[in-house]
Amino acid sequence: MRVAYLGGGFAGWQRQSARRTVQGTLEEALASLFRSEVRVVGAGRTDAGVHASGQIAHCDVPRLIPAAGLRAALNGTLPLDLRVLAVRHAPPTFHARKSARAKRYRYRLAWGAPLEPWEAQRTWQLSGPIAPVELAAAAARLVGTHDFAAFALSGHAGLGPRGTRRTVHRLEPRQRGRRMSLVVVGDGFLRGMVRRLVGALVEVGRGAQPPRWPAALLEDPTRRPPAPTAPAHGLTLEKVYY
Amino acid sequence: MRVAYLGGGFAGWQRQSARRTVQGTLEEALASLFRSEVRVVGAGRTDAGVHASGQIAHCDVPRLIPAAGLRAALNGTLPLDLRVLAVRHAPPTFHARKSARAKRYRYRLAWGAPLEPWEAQRTWQLSGPIAPVELAAAAARLVGTHDFAAFALSGHAGLGPRGTRRTVHRLEPRQRGRRMSLVVVGDGFLRGMVRRLVGALVEVGRGAQPPRWPAALLEDPTRRPPAPTAPAHGLTLEKVYY
Repeated sequence: MRVAYLGGGFAGWQRQSARRTVQGTLEEALASLFRSEVRVVGAGRTDAGVHASGQIAHCDVPRLIPAAGLRAALNGTLPLDLRVLAVRHAPPTFHARKSARAKRYRYRLAWGAPLEPWEAQRTWQLSGPIAPVELAAAAARLVGTHDFAAFALSGHAGLGPRGTRRTVHRLEPRQRGRRMSLVVVGDGFLRGMVRRLVGALVEVGRGAQPPRWPAALLEDPTRRPPAPTAPAHGLTLEKVYY
Repeated sequence: MRVAYLGGGFAGWQRQSARRTVQGTLEEALASLFRSEVRVVGAGRTDAGVHASGQIAHCDVPRLIPAAGLRAALNGTLPLDLRVLAVRHAPPTFHARKSARAKRYRYRLAWGAPLEPWEAQRTWQLSGPIAPVELAAAAARLVGTHDFAAFALSGHAGLGPRGTRRTVHRLEPRQRGRRMSLVVVGDGFLRGMVRRLVGALVEVGRGAQPPRWPAALLEDPTRRPPAPTAPAHGLTLEKVYY
């Protein structure tokens, strides 16, 4: 299923006892529908506050019901800040996380006049303008296969054989007036990596660091100051590629 | 000041002890800024769940500070679901509620595929399509000066000399694909009136009542069935005219 949510009301994707999470809320809706426990596996474990417009999740259900009926029944039960946009039957070999080849995130920035709250809840509002040319130059240097340890938040467990090496396929700013989107596509992301990439690029965009600085952090993760972490509410998981 | 908010997190505009309201949240922000109690008067007391993109409010402040600085300071303190979009000094005769000549509301409807949550939180999602021609015909019959008692929710206190008589200047559906906006402009609205006008028009749009039915309720407020009340989360106060 393709799932969209507003991150503000959830303590992240992953189920936690006694806290409202996306996985937990989906599993409760499925359990009440099938009257049996159903485990949901998501493509990415988004952090608290991070939104999704195209999170992908799979589950094994105790009996087959038509996909459109399942979507309607789930949306009838789920709160308005969590919607199931599409449901389809998947082959038994499909695994939402393990089958994923790449993910696309979008980080929204704005400056100047205050945003309306429906924009503000998904945008990091900066106090001053961002220089797009310098930011784009810094972003271009981060594209490719690198050791992104400098951009990981602590606690990124289960690294596997790749360690902290990842490939960023695309990292591009798109500006329109006093708004900017940073689109990031990569084969995988360490915990907090997108937000720290954005945090470093914003330092360049506001003139606090030169364009070569974020790439220099790749070479020396102990370098000071470290990349700051952009706030969670500006980030949206848009697409998972299979 | 021009104020925008997402209604979902507020128990309406009006201050209530121990409940989060728009007025209460604004007054707290002003009190912490001026270190003194400040009362805020809004143009319209929106109900719980109703949004605003252009609510107008006034307050008397203990000392004059530049309007741009006040806006920035308030937005720095306020939560992201409540934003002050503009601040200006007003003449002493200005009163946000008493000086208002008219208000514009927008009610959002949709049907078909599920909406993304940032749309869903401001839209009433219907199970089936709406017939725009029949709905527009019914809406046209409601424009003008009428006794709108049939469309008031109980508890509309302080009616004043006008009683339940109001003038609706404009009431128009605008359709785009599987979405429809109902724009309502009037010189004033009884409690729940916009939502019950929308509720009646949707009954016509889905074929449950004929286009002449909503206007017939004006003539006989005791007529059964009464106009249903559309959910609060589809409604936004867009503009106050002075």
